Amino acid sequence: MTTSRLEAFSDGVFAIIITIMVLEFRIPHGHDFAALRPLLPVFLSYILSFILVANYWNNHHHTFQIATKVNGRILWANAHLLFWLSLTPIATIWMGENITYPLPMAVFGGLQLACAFAYLVLSRELLYAHGPESEIGKALGDNQKKELLSLTLYTAGIPLAYLDSRIAFACYFIVAVMWIIPDRRIEKRIQASGGSEEN
Amino acid sequence: MTTSRLEAFSDGVFAIIITIMVLEFRIPHGHDFAALRPLLPVFLSYILSFILVANYWNNHHHTFQIATKVNGRILWANAHLLFWLSLTPIATIWMGENITYPLPMAVFGGLQLACAFAYLVLSRELLYAHGPESEIGKALGDNQKKELLSLTLYTAGIPLAYLDSRIAFACYFIVAVMWIIPDRRIEKRIQASGGSEEN
Amino acid sequence: MTTSRLEAFSDGVFAIIITIMVLEFRIPHGHDFAALRPLLPVFLSYILSFILVANYWNNHHHTFQIATKVNGRILWANAHLLFWLSLTPIATIWMGENITYPLPMAVFGGLQLACAFAYLVLSRELLYAHGPESEIGKALGDNQKKELLSLTLYTAGIPLAYLDSRIAFACYFIVAVMWIIPDRRIEKRIQASGGSEEN
Amino acid sequence: MTTSRLEAFSDGVFAIIITIMVLEFRIPHGHDFAALRPLLPVFLSYILSFILVANYWNNHHHTFQIATKVNGRILWANAHLLFWLSLTPIATIWMGENITYPLPMAVFGGLQLACAFAYLVLSRELLYAHGPESEIGKALGDNQKKELLSLTLYTAGIPLAYLDSRIAFACYFIVAVMWIIPDRRIEKRIQASGGSEEN
Repeated sequence: MTTSRLEAFSDGVFAIIITIMVLEFRIPHGHDFAALRPLLPVFLSYILSFILVANYWNNHHHTFQIATKVNGRILWANAHLLFWLSLTPIATIWMGENITYPLPMAVFGGLQLACAFAYLVLSRELLYAHGPESEIGKALGDNQKKELLSLTLYTAGIPLAYLDSRIAFACYFIVAVMWIIPDRRIEKRIQASGGSEEN
Repeated sequence: MTTSRLEAFSDGVFAIIITIMVLEFRIPHGHDFAALRPLLPVFLSYILSFILVANYWNNHHHTFQIATKVNGRILWANAHLLFWLSLTPIATIWMGENITYPLPMAVFGGLQLACAFAYLVLSRELLYAHGPESEIGKALGDNQKKELLSLTLYTAGIPLAYLDSRIAFACYFIVAVMWIIPDRRIEKRIQASGGSEEN
Repeated sequence: MTTSRLEAFSDGVFAIIITIMVLEFRIPHGHDFAALRPLLPVFLSYILSFILVANYWNNHHHTFQIATKVNGRILWANAHLLFWLSLTPIATIWMGENITYPLPMAVFGGLQLACAFAYLVLSRELLYAHGPESEIGKALGDNQKKELLSLTLYTAGIPLAYLDSRIAFACYFIVAVMWIIPDRRIEKRIQASGGSEEN
Repeated sequence: MTTSRLEAFSDGVFAIIITIMVLEFRIPHGHDFAALRPLLPVFLSYILSFILVANYWNNHHHTFQIATKVNGRILWANAHLLFWLSLTPIATIWMGENITYPLPMAVFGGLQLACAFAYLVLSRELLYAHGPESEIGKALGDNQKKELLSLTLYTAGIPLAYLDSRIAFACYFIVAVMWIIPDRRIEKRIQASGGSEEN
């Protein structure tokens, strides 16, 4: 299967991104509850980013299960997605350490917008390479309501961060939760083609 | 095999979690034995966490060897387990640097309780997806004495940390050692189905 | 396939190199635009290095797709390449934090020269092991204009950094962009041998 | 192949160990040659450790290519090896930053002794599981001159560090260089069994 090494490399990057965020946590210097309190907003930001990155991995996993080929453009669209995702850990910690300020909150939204856009570009390239009659074409060619709603919520989060950073955080959180449900369109395709993946 | 990419991603996360703990060690600033002494409790905590994480990897490895399918719920149960495990490195170092204080010791126990619970949820989802008559159903459907004992020891460790942090540490260490022996129930199943895995 | 574990190990190292650069970013201490400004040259350096490392991964991926065997010399040529690449993250951040100074810029160029040279050595070993009549021999035995131009630009960047560090940066950037287009010679070979990889 | 996931996990850990050493390098604060000078002994230590870890990976790769089964004892012997190897990065940097002092040099030797011993234990377990008549039995059952010489050099390095730390460093370096030549015994076995691996 020609997509295997792209998946292996991406898995490595996903695994590192999701794990190194914890490395940026500053280990508390005290040993009582007061020492833990400043970690709370960082911890909340970590939960948000963990779900977001896990969503990308899940969808990547589902999509490449029905992808049958890879070309130079797909390799670069994938690298482009990983580039923006790789910035998520520092954006997460910066937001977490400044949870009440608008700019870090807006920057996080802008970064997630870039990730979502990069994923859309990757989908387009996969669709283009496989054609509309392929399994991936039928799965991805359908409506993209969830993608559009995500882009809208990230975009809304940026100005809303200046109104109240909690509203922006809520917008991002809605996107995270919304994608926990895996892509039904692709699962349907896998089942249709006799795969053993089910939900 | 449809479980392969979930295993690859999990292996990546396990490998990073087990290795980055060392990154949090503060490199001694002196060059004599006195410079090494503060590392000793951190080193002991590292041994404990290394065994605990290696146990999860071993059991994960054994379980997914007889798993034959993956669905959206299993993907999320797995991500949920990795989320709690990913917090182990900082909890380890915080405990190691404050080995005589109750709170870091209790927090470590609470975190391990969350990991153990998340593993139980993952097992349930695997059992539910494969059915009681599958290989995995027969292996996991048996008694769960070790799981219950682990949960009990972690739970006991939390209040005991306030009595004497060494007692709590001993509780966690018993769990770690207890799981070094791999899951006989699953090894039996692998052998029964003609696999070449033996103990 | 005997090249699979070398690829898996290399993928791991590539994935880590490309991701840990972000770990070296110092998280801004403020929460306004002024706090972000010092990150800008580091961010530019990160883009450059991300593309350079992604190029190496892409070419490595393409080359090993048509490689059919691995020997001790190839293992070491590969480790030699990874050694120099592993120094890229700190060279990147040092350059980014001292973007107007000649030495960090020249050191970065020297390091990239070492990486390019190491890749050339790896190609030679692969060519030698497979013979000129193999797929890999036909692909790599052709002209090496791009390799020579890269070596020239890196070499030129070192003294030019002392003239103006921006000229050196531009030289390195040209190499990065030049290699975004994947290796046509190898893609042709994959297609000729009936692979499903296309561009 | 039942060894594949053990290899994948080990590859991940090897890749991280070999790469994170660089993360511990303190990025120079100046921008001239004086800023680079303190990095020189750390860099030398890095070269040494990079070769040592790459040697373990190479031998691990060669050995598991002819291994056909894995059991609980082998899993733990492997985890035991990875435990000691995971301490190599901090021992390397501590040695590099205190290159003229005996204790960090002796500790590094002691750690490498532990790694070498752990590798020997892993070999024994593999030999025991496969039997003396297996491919792995024939390869590992032969003489172990190189292993003994390595153990001797590491052991000698510990007291010699107190005489002159450079002598100890030289001892370790001899081991590193000695193992660059891959395991002929195993390569012979792979060729004998018709594998395409050659040297």
